[in-house]
Amino acid sequence: MNAPIEFYFDLSSPYGYLAAQKIDALAAKHGRTVDWHPILLGVMFRATGMAPLTEVPMKGEYSKRDFLRSARFHGLSFRMPSRFPIPTQAAARIMLWVREQDPARAVRIAKAMFHAYFADDVDISDPDAATTTAAREGVDAAAARAAVDDPVVKDALRREVETALARGVFGSPFVIVDGEPFWGLDRFDQIDRWLATGGF
Amino acid sequence: MNAPIEFYFDLSSPYGYLAAQKIDALAAKHGRTVDWHPILLGVMFRATGMAPLTEVPMKGEYSKRDFLRSARFHGLSFRMPSRFPIPTQAAARIMLWVREQDPARAVRIAKAMFHAYFADDVDISDPDAATTTAAREGVDAAAARAAVDDPVVKDALRREVETALARGVFGSPFVIVDGEPFWGLDRFDQIDRWLATGGF
Repeated sequence: MNAPIEFYFDLSSPYGYLAAQKIDALAAKHGRTVDWHPILLGVMFRATGMAPLTEVPMKGEYSKRDFLRSARFHGLSFRMPSRFPIPTQAAARIMLWVREQDPARAVRIAKAMFHAYFADDVDISDPDAATTTAAREGVDAAAARAAVDDPVVKDALRREVETALARGVFGSPFVIVDGEPFWGLDRFDQIDRWLATGGF
Repeated sequence: MNAPIEFYFDLSSPYGYLAAQKIDALAAKHGRTVDWHPILLGVMFRATGMAPLTEVPMKGEYSKRDFLRSARFHGLSFRMPSRFPIPTQAAARIMLWVREQDPARAVRIAKAMFHAYFADDVDISDPDAATTTAAREGVDAAAARAAVDDPVVKDALRREVETALARGVFGSPFVIVDGEPFWGLDRFDQIDRWLATGGF
């Protein structure tokens, strides 16, 4: 029984969204499962001194073009949200709160959050919008809304991000396969070969 | 007759070195030629506020691992130089000086500079080392050494970098195909399809 692949993402990350549409199939191709870990890129940016892609001169304009082109290249859906980037604490807390009880449903919620933000232009930084999105996946709306402000859930997210940082995760998407770190959707070809061969 | 592909690189860029080993074959596959443009990443970093990859906390450690792994993935040679990064004015000036007379030889010199730095650990920021490297490609050593300090050649490099900046080039490798910008060796798969299809 091989260990799960670890998949780290911020729910406001364009390449994270694209990667989220591919990671399960990539893992399944090699008989692996995926552990989904929400992170907060703002915390990573403070640790590295990096900034959101779209706020970097020149690179910002290029990135907006590359998000769309990369989505087309991979045959994936993507639409640039009206507000970008956004803080993703509310959405990530709901996902973690569900993960405690039902990891498979938590993955469906993460995908629903990504889709709400990058396909339907829903601002999931708003706790009520995040709650509505989660409720469509069958969780109790009032309980999900309460989880956003629950100190225990807040602490769980803080620990999730700290653990990711301690493991060297500094961007999104970030994948760890048997200890080997891969940053970016554009490393999925390397992940594919790594899984097939056990390393190269 | 299709326009040449424009290939921008800093001679101290690891992914630039890997890309330099692939770009001519990629272009030739689609009946294209390549115009080779040396740039100075230090100038680009001042324009964007970016920093050398290896100097960014966390990302730096990851990058050193990724240089080596990406080289192995693509079946290309790579060795991390003792001193990194280095200023590449001397090497770039010699290349540009040769390009005026003999573009094909200038490409061979660029490849020789990359190989000297990333395979043989030669510090090509040293004008004499850069000259020796160029001389092996059949240029006159004394004339090449003089070109490094020639105000006309210095100005040619300054214009080359300014033109690149004006075209939106902010990193290395950077490729422009019929006006479409691609940043990074990891966009070569997109370039390949773009050339095959005329865009997607």
